[in-house]
Amino acid sequence: MSELRQDPATKDWVIIATERARRPNDFAEDELAHRPRAMLPEHLDACPFCRGNENQTPPAVLTYTDGPEGSAWLLRVVPNKFAALTLQGSTTRSIEGGLFRRMDGVGRHEVVIETPIHNRMIALMNNHEIELTLQAYYERYHALKADPRVKLIIIFKNHGLSAGTSLEHPHSQIVATPIAPNHVRNRLEVAMRHYDDTGECMYRSMVDAELRIGDRVVEDTPFFAVFQPFASRSPFETWIVPKRTCASFANISKEELTALAPVLRRTLLRLYVGLNDPDYNLMINTTPVDDEAKPYYMWHIQIIPRLTTVAGFEMGSGIYINTALPEQTAQFLRDVEVG
Amino acid sequence: MSELRQDPATKDWVIIATERARRPNDFAEDELAHRPRAMLPEHLDACPFCRGNENQTPPAVLTYTDGPEGSAWLLRVVPNKFAALTLQGSTTRSIEGGLFRRMDGVGRHEVVIETPIHNRMIALMNNHEIELTLQAYYERYHALKADPRVKLIIIFKNHGLSAGTSLEHPHSQIVATPIAPNHVRNRLEVAMRHYDDTGECMYRSMVDAELRIGDRVVEDTPFFAVFQPFASRSPFETWIVPKRTCASFANISKEELTALAPVLRRTLLRLYVGLNDPDYNLMINTTPVDDEAKPYYMWHIQIIPRLTTVAGFEMGSGIYINTALPEQTAQFLRDVEVG
Repeated sequence: MSELRQDPATKDWVIIATERARRPNDFAEDELAHRPRAMLPEHLDACPFCRGNENQTPPAVLTYTDGPEGSAWLLRVVPNKFAALTLQGSTTRSIEGGLFRRMDGVGRHEVVIETPIHNRMIALMNNHEIELTLQAYYERYHALKADPRVKLIIIFKNHGLSAGTSLEHPHSQIVATPIAPNHVRNRLEVAMRHYDDTGECMYRSMVDAELRIGDRVVEDTPFFAVFQPFASRSPFETWIVPKRTCASFANISKEELTALAPVLRRTLLRLYVGLNDPDYNLMINTTPVDDEAKPYYMWHIQIIPRLTTVAGFEMGSGIYINTALPEQTAQFLRDVEVG
Repeated sequence: MSELRQDPATKDWVIIATERARRPNDFAEDELAHRPRAMLPEHLDACPFCRGNENQTPPAVLTYTDGPEGSAWLLRVVPNKFAALTLQGSTTRSIEGGLFRRMDGVGRHEVVIETPIHNRMIALMNNHEIELTLQAYYERYHALKADPRVKLIIIFKNHGLSAGTSLEHPHSQIVATPIAPNHVRNRLEVAMRHYDDTGECMYRSMVDAELRIGDRVVEDTPFFAVFQPFASRSPFETWIVPKRTCASFANISKEELTALAPVLRRTLLRLYVGLNDPDYNLMINTTPVDDEAKPYYMWHIQIIPRLTTVAGFEMGSGIYINTALPEQTAQFLRDVEVG
């Protein structure tokens, strides 16, 4: 018999197909069909993100170098050449016939080029390199929120074709939107209701419960817990959650940012080694900018390896079918040797 | 500049990337790389859904034949051999630590084998064959709702690998769930608020507005309107909506069911011809069984061709980026010649 589990963060139900669950091993990319991206070249003349091709992107809004001004760059943040949202325009809504509401596509869309080296996937970086990327996220978050039209800043990474990117070069994206979408508001409301009912931050209770139960924990560290949620929507969904109640990534401490780098590195390396460099999406879930001080939410990193396909049932019902047991996949990842 | 549009049915925003929008033509499957499924064989010994292989599925719960009992079958409905939900179990919830709610995976999961002919895609069927499929949906809906544990019945079709099926043989699925999920409840609530505010059914107003505006209409018929919604989440998203306020597919009239067959045929044929047999998901969006008589919702068919990939931005924000203009894609489909 399968099992229905409710995600406490959304109240959405997930079907865990316990009986026909695939073993964690079955999700690994085939070694013959899938060449791990570490085997790509270190430099590609045709890649707009490789060193020497800086003129193929708009001018950088942030650059980290390995020395004084003019030294070689280590990381660049550039406006997205094909931006989904741009600076111009107004946030005034118009509405037609009481039904069709629209507004200008105001916002920002940036690309974080995480390294000049074409095949240096984040899972294979050292802690310092990853910390630079996190530092860039932090700096750009604060720069973007200075625009009062910005309501939410989404930081995410698409790794691989099935995760929605055709660009191999390690990069992530930052989008500043002029609206706080339902997707985020709903999570906040569920958390607020829980807070009002129990007096506790639901995310903190979730971390405490996951660490106490232990089955779904991938790694426990002083500042962050890594686990696969009780109601994971897809196989190997993995969360990295701070241990301190902190609603927004905007308020991560310097100490936490430094501590996050090795935790993120090891988590992505476990996936890289255990599943042979799978495609994945990584999102930093955080509050709208006006809700950064809320006591009932915790920003967190959500990693979704793209191992299955969303189909009509999920699209029509919002109920996801997960063909893996989080308890088994978490143990599988725990057992992967990482430095 | 791109444009943000709000879906009146969900209040979700969509980014319509007007400037970098691709032309409708650009979404067509490549004729060399993608062999239209009409070119598959008519019969496959290895296919569990082909005639002669009936013993490879569980016994049928519904069979249509072309003559008296014992005649050759035209359509079979069978329990899914790899069911996500099954008859056994209880809908009693248990909850651990106030957070982790679970219940048995109770429900039903059936497969509608729409034809004995392996390559007879629904887009290429005649009206009578399609009507048989719709009739089977209707009969099974009413059979499944007799179980008081059933709260929602989702009817859907996954066509092609990128739409989540590896089975080529034309089939659809019916899942009866023991819960009414947020995904559906939220749409009902938005519709209820609109009804309370305006006294009108939002879906009916939407149909009226789309027909009045005309730009996004694919086809207007006496019983159904076919259009691409104002805030389409992905290129070529297409809706078929009845013209009569009717909350549930359970209450479709005999006349409407007969009229729906040619409308569905032509709509799928437009996609088949215009985009060279794209993969797609088709969902019948309807109310939970307890809400079938609500005056503020209208069941409808939603077709989502799988032409783009959902990535980190969509997963993190719930905001979809649509790289096509519904006004252009609707015109493209209108212009496809269908019988």
